[in-house]
Amino acid sequence: MNIYRGNIVYSKSPNELVELKRGYVVVKDGIIFGVYAILPHRYANFKVTDFGEDVIIPAFSDLHVHAPQYPNRGIAMDLLLNDWLHTYTFPLEAKYKDPKFAKEVYYPFVRDLVKNGTLHACIYGTIHNDATNVLMQALERKGICSFVGKVNMDKDSPDYLIEETNESIEETEKFIKKNSKNIFAKPLLTPRFAPTCSFDLLKKLGKLSAKYDIGVQTHIVESKWEAEEAKKCFEGCRCDMQIYKDAGLLDHAPFIAAHYIYPCQEDLDLLKECNGVAVQCPDSTLNVIAGIMSTGKLLDMGIRVGFGSDLSAGSYIGIYTQIASSVRLSKLKNLYEPDNRQITFAEAFYIATKGGGSLWEKVGSLEQGYFFDALVLHGLQDKFTNLSPKELVERFCYLGTSKNIAHIYLRGKEL
Amino acid sequence: MNIYRGNIVYSKSPNELVELKRGYVVVKDGIIFGVYAILPHRYANFKVTDFGEDVIIPAFSDLHVHAPQYPNRGIAMDLLLNDWLHTYTFPLEAKYKDPKFAKEVYYPFVRDLVKNGTLHACIYGTIHNDATNVLMQALERKGICSFVGKVNMDKDSPDYLIEETNESIEETEKFIKKNSKNIFAKPLLTPRFAPTCSFDLLKKLGKLSAKYDIGVQTHIVESKWEAEEAKKCFEGCRCDMQIYKDAGLLDHAPFIAAHYIYPCQEDLDLLKECNGVAVQCPDSTLNVIAGIMSTGKLLDMGIRVGFGSDLSAGSYIGIYTQIASSVRLSKLKNLYEPDNRQITFAEAFYIATKGGGSLWEKVGSLEQGYFFDALVLHGLQDKFTNLSPKELVERFCYLGTSKNIAHIYLRGKEL
Repeated sequence: MNIYRGNIVYSKSPNELVELKRGYVVVKDGIIFGVYAILPHRYANFKVTDFGEDVIIPAFSDLHVHAPQYPNRGIAMDLLLNDWLHTYTFPLEAKYKDPKFAKEVYYPFVRDLVKNGTLHACIYGTIHNDATNVLMQALERKGICSFVGKVNMDKDSPDYLIEETNESIEETEKFIKKNSKNIFAKPLLTPRFAPTCSFDLLKKLGKLSAKYDIGVQTHIVESKWEAEEAKKCFEGCRCDMQIYKDAGLLDHAPFIAAHYIYPCQEDLDLLKECNGVAVQCPDSTLNVIAGIMSTGKLLDMGIRVGFGSDLSAGSYIGIYTQIASSVRLSKLKNLYEPDNRQITFAEAFYIATKGGGSLWEKVGSLEQGYFFDALVLHGLQDKFTNLSPKELVERFCYLGTSKNIAHIYLRGKEL
Repeated sequence: MNIYRGNIVYSKSPNELVELKRGYVVVKDGIIFGVYAILPHRYANFKVTDFGEDVIIPAFSDLHVHAPQYPNRGIAMDLLLNDWLHTYTFPLEAKYKDPKFAKEVYYPFVRDLVKNGTLHACIYGTIHNDATNVLMQALERKGICSFVGKVNMDKDSPDYLIEETNESIEETEKFIKKNSKNIFAKPLLTPRFAPTCSFDLLKKLGKLSAKYDIGVQTHIVESKWEAEEAKKCFEGCRCDMQIYKDAGLLDHAPFIAAHYIYPCQEDLDLLKECNGVAVQCPDSTLNVIAGIMSTGKLLDMGIRVGFGSDLSAGSYIGIYTQIASSVRLSKLKNLYEPDNRQITFAEAFYIATKGGGSLWEKVGSLEQGYFFDALVLHGLQDKFTNLSPKELVERFCYLGTSKNIAHIYLRGKEL
């Protein structure tokens, strides 16, 4: 039994951001027993770890990140998607043919992810099986709940980064089998996006999805170009999501739709029907994609929403920065497309924690029964003002760095 | 004579970002003698301070920052301007009636400004003379080239933060006289913005401008509301800039126009005519203003442009972060208003250094004859890639913090 005292902030729902001043969290075997303003008598004889004014919050979930692109974070950010992909991103991804290079990058990447408070993640590897297995190992050893994909792409990609369809499928099946006994890092099908996949490839992935009861992550309507291109690539195609439905890729959860900026009504219906998650990557869409998700509308429609760092189209590995970006972008969306409402800080915090965390069991909140996957935030108060716990968390999301994360707990164990 | 070696990056013009790998900067009496790829023979016997792969860049200029709002940085960011002003900002500004509170805030504010590489700034105080004199002292002692204003507001403001017109003028004149012998921190007229100023106040400020040959900073067409409100407040007024012209406030340089998001043609003509500076505050306009400056258009028209942190509507004190934000916003502006082009990283870096620095003499570049007001950037390379000096600077602007600024030189002296 472990008892922690401090300021406490967590989401119950998009509109309910709970705040306790100097409250208590009681944890047993890594699971939260309860959160209390006053410690119940029955715990009077237990030792209390007191964090003072520091704030205990749930850890973050990153639902869209390209681990191999980690070395390119924060460069070439004035390009747009196509130039950025072909000049910087694809050449870097090609290097992962060498598993040694993968090892050099993926271990520091996982360390940085954790240091920034992300304890659950959906991650893209590259087309390379060996390299992506290295990523799996790094995550599995650290105990990070994650979905990871070996990427599939069999058309309209550079020669040095394209697969033959059947080989792509064979490698994917090998990848699934190799990682089938992992406890934390689970395999996920990862067709890059519709324009780089043949229908044959998608249908064969659909069969793997059924055979292994395994879900899918991909980029959906990430740009106007992509939304149109998807329709052109597939005969009789009405929308991006329909391709995945027709290929049998919406039948086995989870379905993780990155960006999801320009969905039509059918895209929306299909995502809701399969209980998929729309992943906003606010910083990334500002940098190379140029578009803003209708976050408020999706929340109001009851569609699940999470955040992604989308390294290295996004610059920041910390999901807390996406909270700030998402609030900002909702204001601009409202300015230019007034039928889209702004979102609140509470909603954005919910998306970053409980929303994204909903991909796993009991993750992303500090409610009873949840895993104690938590962060302790430090050094955000100053002497001029007396910020409330919620305000301290907001300041962290706007101004904080990993240095403000003083303690990290994963299933109750401090890392 | 001081000689520094390292990677060197600086702007000559918006499109010319100079990069020297392991070059030399020769400095005498705080002034740059020359920048060289190979050190000329005549300097062979001088000691060289070698920064290795670290990058030497010019220091930044912040052309719009509200020092009194420093305590509120990073909170209440999901509000819009009016709520944010009345719930958070005005009540905080009222506290500066007490010069002791001012002292508590302004010294750490100036330290934080410098720590983040801003060595030149245009700063708003509050309506309070004593408090604003404290700010002047803090800047003068540190040797920061700055323009600072006691704010004027005599209408449509909260009771606790409004001045009687004549008293406002008298206090302003006292403020100018008190600071007339300052070497670094110069007084500037600072009517808050048109909707909170009577025309009588503006005209009387116009007389002070003529009497003391002193310029003006204010908020210009910062929102659609403000652009319209300005016209309503002043009889026969066609546009925001015209009010200042009619009051005689465009006749004595500098004229510093913060935000400048919705200028009409006459606003543009008048700003160009008085050689004024348009100040983009990208983060601030994302947070509480909601609008995007036509940065590329203004550059193309030959209008001077600088950046402002606009604390605490803007969250970040570092102007380097505004470089990243400005590039991002130019992409969204282009998406929603396609006749606005994107800007490049080189242009944004120019704005943050030489553009903003143009308010002072020979500040904002590393060209011959410029003051050696410079920063040395450290810790941005990693082992995965071999980033060029320009890429290191770009990464700093996207991912860096004050911790990456290893050395700061002000007129040749290390701080």
